[in-house]
Amino acid sequence: MKAWQDYISQHGDRFVEELSELLRIPSISTDTAHKQDVQRCAELVKQYLEQAGAGKVQIFPTAGHPVVYAEKHVSDQLPTVLVYGHYDVQPADPLSLWHHDPFDPIIRDGRIYARGASDDKGQFFMHVKALEIMTRTQTLPVNLKFIIEGEEEIGSKHLTTFVQEHSDMLKCDVVLVSDTALISLQQPSIDVGVRGLAYVQVEVTGPDHDLHSGVYGGAVPNPATILCQMIAQLHDADHRVHIPGFYDDVEEIPAEERALLAKAPFDPEQFKRETGVRDFWGEKGYTVRERIGIRPTLEINGIWSGYTGEGAKTVLPSKAYAKISCRLVPHQDHQQITQLLGDHLKKIAPSCVQVEVKPLHGGDPYVLPISHPAYRAAARAMQATLGKEPVPVRGGGSIPITSVFLKTLGVHTVFLGFGLDDDCLHAPNEKFDLANFFKGIETIPYFHRFFAEENLKS
Amino acid sequence: MKAWQDYISQHGDRFVEELSELLRIPSISTDTAHKQDVQRCAELVKQYLEQAGAGKVQIFPTAGHPVVYAEKHVSDQLPTVLVYGHYDVQPADPLSLWHHDPFDPIIRDGRIYARGASDDKGQFFMHVKALEIMTRTQTLPVNLKFIIEGEEEIGSKHLTTFVQEHSDMLKCDVVLVSDTALISLQQPSIDVGVRGLAYVQVEVTGPDHDLHSGVYGGAVPNPATILCQMIAQLHDADHRVHIPGFYDDVEEIPAEERALLAKAPFDPEQFKRETGVRDFWGEKGYTVRERIGIRPTLEINGIWSGYTGEGAKTVLPSKAYAKISCRLVPHQDHQQITQLLGDHLKKIAPSCVQVEVKPLHGGDPYVLPISHPAYRAAARAMQATLGKEPVPVRGGGSIPITSVFLKTLGVHTVFLGFGLDDDCLHAPNEKFDLANFFKGIETIPYFHRFFAEENLKS
Repeated sequence: MKAWQDYISQHGDRFVEELSELLRIPSISTDTAHKQDVQRCAELVKQYLEQAGAGKVQIFPTAGHPVVYAEKHVSDQLPTVLVYGHYDVQPADPLSLWHHDPFDPIIRDGRIYARGASDDKGQFFMHVKALEIMTRTQTLPVNLKFIIEGEEEIGSKHLTTFVQEHSDMLKCDVVLVSDTALISLQQPSIDVGVRGLAYVQVEVTGPDHDLHSGVYGGAVPNPATILCQMIAQLHDADHRVHIPGFYDDVEEIPAEERALLAKAPFDPEQFKRETGVRDFWGEKGYTVRERIGIRPTLEINGIWSGYTGEGAKTVLPSKAYAKISCRLVPHQDHQQITQLLGDHLKKIAPSCVQVEVKPLHGGDPYVLPISHPAYRAAARAMQATLGKEPVPVRGGGSIPITSVFLKTLGVHTVFLGFGLDDDCLHAPNEKFDLANFFKGIETIPYFHRFFAEENLKS
Repeated sequence: MKAWQDYISQHGDRFVEELSELLRIPSISTDTAHKQDVQRCAELVKQYLEQAGAGKVQIFPTAGHPVVYAEKHVSDQLPTVLVYGHYDVQPADPLSLWHHDPFDPIIRDGRIYARGASDDKGQFFMHVKALEIMTRTQTLPVNLKFIIEGEEEIGSKHLTTFVQEHSDMLKCDVVLVSDTALISLQQPSIDVGVRGLAYVQVEVTGPDHDLHSGVYGGAVPNPATILCQMIAQLHDADHRVHIPGFYDDVEEIPAEERALLAKAPFDPEQFKRETGVRDFWGEKGYTVRERIGIRPTLEINGIWSGYTGEGAKTVLPSKAYAKISCRLVPHQDHQQITQLLGDHLKKIAPSCVQVEVKPLHGGDPYVLPISHPAYRAAARAMQATLGKEPVPVRGGGSIPITSVFLKTLGVHTVFLGFGLDDDCLHAPNEKFDLANFFKGIETIPYFHRFFAEENLKS
């Protein structure tokens, strides 16, 4: 619609400046040292929602980081869309690999670079700006609610309770989330599934203090060696996860659906360039996209033990640690997989070491049926602004709160993501293409219009 | 001898104060940030040697850290003993596990606690004080030379060249080293062998930057997972090192010699208490002492990859690193083993990752025949001050320079160590028992006296 486009043209520079303000706050939820920054970020989100025209904006404290809630009620006759996003970000380390300060955004070649640019400050902010446009142009066709949380990167722990306790306030017809990627603006796509997550930290203890590797080496259990041996047993030769029971609840996707998902274009050389790998790796019998979308995985996210500084130190370490996470697919249960993984690690450890496993994070997988009115509305909105019908894809990431929305509020979630796979989420030099940012802002009002229509039809 | 004992009684407190001064200098050779401290430490060693009565003391710069050299010539008719020691120390981390500042020595329960207390400042300083005693009491029965280096903890890299270039100056009949442990003052022992060392750092690269473990997990090689799989292949089920050719040059010790070495008392429960392990670990078919003394080993000294901070970060790391070292026994060659290890790591890595191996440190194993006059002199000296004949043992640590002395100067090395196995070398809360310190100072003059006698006999 021309009014929307005109508004974006006139105010686009300000939108980017406002986003930059958000990105300047290091709202790292996992690091307690940044607690005040997280709070400060929540306050800025509240201020932006008020400026955009939300009628009622409130910061709800939780046992962890606060939730920002907003409402814009138009009419009881209209459907209600709940926009979900998160203003917290991942840690920025390793800092040395960033080309610039991750919390001092820069714009280069039409992209804004900063931690959180795409995940998720840049993306949820599209909804704030879309609200502003619809309010100023008096074109808001639905009732809108916003829930922007500060703990997505640490498992949305307190949001689950919050949703349960405020299920009346959050009542809605669908949840709308921009926290995923599309293939490209030329080849739009919609994630219809996100994987679940089971994330643990394992600690292996050999001797009760660090020893000299000469004086004791060869006669006492080295926890680093043993942790490596344990981790090596977690995949078989076909790169399948080798934990008894792990695949028991995995939905086998029928051949027709695999064929449909295979329609999303995939360029293996482009994928190699994007990741910088020499070759692929993964479960035998599945394509690269399938390994990411419809199959569960197990990854080492971190490992550390002994001396990691410059030069040589002949230490035989007392402890070795690893952070291990599984991505889950329907119908795996994250609590059950966490338990399986922890029990298995303890079972395969030799008796000469002590093993502790601490669950850190978890969430269930989620899939949106493509027959849902919200999917149809999203597909039509992308068609309207990008000129091409999007393809459905299964995303590899996790947004665990979606399964909570389904269970607690009884509503589905639609992902209207405008990130790109090369946005470097959770990695150095995270960026968000400004073209995507503006296309996202333009597409969102269409979604609301078509959702109101589809909802009337169904 | 009473004169020696009296001198120690009168000056013992000062000896401990002087040692404390040495321990206050963080002469960490592996860390370039401490280069000035290493230099400062060399200067203090020089000053102490001059005060003790050495005639000629000199600091020799090298391409790395300096060597302190001293001489006390008595007579051309007497044999010459070259005392070797090192004033550099290991890094002190993890600092959080120290009960106090590692470079602010404290004395508690008759022990001095500090980094370097036993390895090797406290031990080489016994020789400085023994020189002082023999000079002051005019009882020095040999010519003495000292070579106290600053790079032992990083492989004595430049000392090899130094010894080669100054072989005339260093001419001697035997090398005497206190840088090992005895079983106890009640059960003296002498190390007749030290293991060699081959120490490398391995770097495995998967993607060329850190990736989001959801967006890419399951489809690209995770270098942490793969490094663990590689490390897991380095030992077989019997805990033997599983590298083709690794054992080819290992001397099989005859049954009689194994029986002799087995005479050294060993208390398994004491060993478990000392190390805090639940159970032993090691090569099948060998006792705990044999695993440490006569068998080669492979240990992980450090490993790191990905996110190692607080909480959960869903990163798929670009790189994974490990520090891996082998302890070697006669007749393994450290350069050959370094090559074998590096080649093997590259060979077992899957082609989807890149592997680099950097040698960090190395040295050959060394064994002193117990028929050597210096061994007999050391045994008699211990008998004189400790009242019991020492047993020969094979130590697990490495003092690579000994094989250089044998090759370059044509002389053997005798180890007159007064540390204890629970000194926490290379670990937090390193200590040296002052009773051992004083017994060492008392024993050293006996060694020189008996060596002069044994040398005349042989």
